[in-house]
Amino acid sequence: MTSTSDLLARRDRLLGPNMSTFYRDPVHIVKGEGVWLTDVDGRRYLDCYNNVPHVGHCHPKVVEAIAQQAATLNTHTRYLHEGILDYVEALTAKFADHLTSAIMVCSGSEANDVALRMAEAVTGNKGVIATDMTYHGNTAAVSQLSIRKPPIGGYATHIRHVPAPDSVRPLSGKPGAEFAAAFTAKVEQAVAGLQASGHGVASLIICPFFANEGFPDLPRGFLDGAVKAVRVAGGVIIADEVQPGFGRIGTHWWGHEKIGIAPEIVTIGKPMANGHPVAAVIAGYETLSAFRHAFGYFNTFGGNPVSCAAAMAVLEIIDEEGLVANALDVGNYAQKGLRELQAQFPVIGNVRGSGLFFGAEMVLDEQMTPASDFTLAIVEGMKAKGILLNRLGHEYATLKIRPPMVFSRENVGFLINALGDVLQETPAP
Amino acid sequence: MTSTSDLLARRDRLLGPNMSTFYRDPVHIVKGEGVWLTDVDGRRYLDCYNNVPHVGHCHPKVVEAIAQQAATLNTHTRYLHEGILDYVEALTAKFADHLTSAIMVCSGSEANDVALRMAEAVTGNKGVIATDMTYHGNTAAVSQLSIRKPPIGGYATHIRHVPAPDSVRPLSGKPGAEFAAAFTAKVEQAVAGLQASGHGVASLIICPFFANEGFPDLPRGFLDGAVKAVRVAGGVIIADEVQPGFGRIGTHWWGHEKIGIAPEIVTIGKPMANGHPVAAVIAGYETLSAFRHAFGYFNTFGGNPVSCAAAMAVLEIIDEEGLVANALDVGNYAQKGLRELQAQFPVIGNVRGSGLFFGAEMVLDEQMTPASDFTLAIVEGMKAKGILLNRLGHEYATLKIRPPMVFSRENVGFLINALGDVLQETPAP
Repeated sequence: MTSTSDLLARRDRLLGPNMSTFYRDPVHIVKGEGVWLTDVDGRRYLDCYNNVPHVGHCHPKVVEAIAQQAATLNTHTRYLHEGILDYVEALTAKFADHLTSAIMVCSGSEANDVALRMAEAVTGNKGVIATDMTYHGNTAAVSQLSIRKPPIGGYATHIRHVPAPDSVRPLSGKPGAEFAAAFTAKVEQAVAGLQASGHGVASLIICPFFANEGFPDLPRGFLDGAVKAVRVAGGVIIADEVQPGFGRIGTHWWGHEKIGIAPEIVTIGKPMANGHPVAAVIAGYETLSAFRHAFGYFNTFGGNPVSCAAAMAVLEIIDEEGLVANALDVGNYAQKGLRELQAQFPVIGNVRGSGLFFGAEMVLDEQMTPASDFTLAIVEGMKAKGILLNRLGHEYATLKIRPPMVFSRENVGFLINALGDVLQETPAP
Repeated sequence: MTSTSDLLARRDRLLGPNMSTFYRDPVHIVKGEGVWLTDVDGRRYLDCYNNVPHVGHCHPKVVEAIAQQAATLNTHTRYLHEGILDYVEALTAKFADHLTSAIMVCSGSEANDVALRMAEAVTGNKGVIATDMTYHGNTAAVSQLSIRKPPIGGYATHIRHVPAPDSVRPLSGKPGAEFAAAFTAKVEQAVAGLQASGHGVASLIICPFFANEGFPDLPRGFLDGAVKAVRVAGGVIIADEVQPGFGRIGTHWWGHEKIGIAPEIVTIGKPMANGHPVAAVIAGYETLSAFRHAFGYFNTFGGNPVSCAAAMAVLEIIDEEGLVANALDVGNYAQKGLRELQAQFPVIGNVRGSGLFFGAEMVLDEQMTPASDFTLAIVEGMKAKGILLNRLGHEYATLKIRPPMVFSRENVGFLINALGDVLQETPAP
């Protein structure tokens, strides 16, 4: 058997340096089933992290759909095929009435790359507003939205970043209406800046659950002021549903429904086909037409019959197995468990989330100073107990718990028990 | 059964307008096997066009690899997995010694988007040179390389286009050394322009077979002067092998080997996994490192175990079934058949190609004026006879014949006979 250090050396040689892995000693997974992953030594891990295997690792219905269609036909959309039509019809039925049409692509990055240009085509403007803690993908255009690392070739002048909303430490210092007003004011500033620069406002692109921003607790209506400011300037809203979408948040199918906005453009990706590389941009017919007329877009792999069969299976499984209701029930049960731990361990400063995307923010004091290193120790401690999760948000001090949608109350029991033990065993920060 | 017009109406409603289809009456394919496609009415077509199903439609070994890995594990590269290492090792063994490492992505567009930034990272320059008839993909950055339609948001200032080489109507008006020198001179002009603009020269990106440009007959060494001019200016060469790669041209595994250049960066896509969405960027360790250090690149779907299993199966099949030698033999046999038709039909002005990427250019006169409409009529006529092919190159007057690599001499017989009949039956231009 190959040792981890041998594998890491091979990875460096073949894939290059500076490739991120999870954990001090990366795990070497060989098998997945439902919410369980098994490593090369036969050790089982409860997967509390991966949203891509949305309906559970290696769901037999998805595997069967892929195998059967791959054995029948796999070609492109320049020939007619009903698979893509049946899928887009079923998919758009899950959205509000104005979102009727879609472009299928291969990755969330490609979807957001198209969405940004769709906004340009429909508005005639170029400026984009995003939060300063977001990540929407890795193409040259989309990576401009992320400020974690300067893009190769430098920053474009048509991007404006606004401070990500933080419900634990709100900009205004206050919850409620003033919290939202402070965010709106920042978006209005960005709008004014883009208009003064001559770029104008094409879009506000947001994850409506603010997943990478640490999924702050935001009241319904929080984004209304920001959305209005963008629309008054002639811009449109792109909701990046790659993380909250497909019922993960339990209360709704899509993050934008929960926060109460009606985006002109929606992008989806990761969980769409349980790991098969597919993504999409959903919009109204007129919005999508503006893009299709301005640019002769064709994507060789996008919308191929195998991708559509895999995506259709996921859509059907979510309904057949009642996974949205499950996400709400099991997620609420998990947050209750976290709150019980919070009563015991003051290091847990905040518990939040929705459905099967939830977590706990670790803090050093009553001023809610983030306990970043401590959170890292918890992540490693949980791994040692056979539980995979991670951290994100402000100074990476929030546990990110985002398991496959077939996660059960029993799985929550295992998770909460282990977390209690790890909190007990880990030296206080 | 749904009618074609119903399907087209559904497509328009669900996928938007201005989506390209092939043929006046698009075909509605439901089944693929080897070199054969079957439509919804049970009509069989000989596939002389599709390079994506490289080892034949629905090759059982690829289907089995996908089904087995999809049932075992499908996750991302932040965990260790040997699938990606085994594949990249096998893949890079097919390249010259300096190309040792790879980044796996989901589409040729993503690969070229990364390659352009890799060139920026390793050279510190921004300028890109491409031909004026090329297509390298559809991301915002990569679509800048195509002049078929102005990119949304306008052209960037760091792209220079050079006239595509045309062996039928060379720039210099002469074949041989002067033909190459005329192309070199255009690249030297572009280099000088980029240097004067302050962008400098990051890369020359080319399909070394100039597939979209109509695969001109180019002597080995044709690109030497252009490559030298780019390197003297500090730039690197990106060979886009999405079309000629994986042995299609019969004489070599890669187009850049045939024309005799050693690119710093190679991109591959379409045929890599027989239609499963995967692509890659191959480079030397130092070149790849420059990118990985400048930018923390991670691709969720890129290099997942299922994609790697599918791609590995394709690599193995090419060798096991001797498909590169087959491409050379069958391709030569087909070109011989086309030349025999040329002796009968003066409208065939030129026969050219390599391996299983070949075609015939239709002309109106001895001045080689392209017979664009006539070529379209031939494409439609061939479809009526159950043969799928298309056209490309200068004024779209060249038949594009690029079948799956399992194409046989018997298939060639069927193709050439049908083409003879269609040439006979189609009114002369």
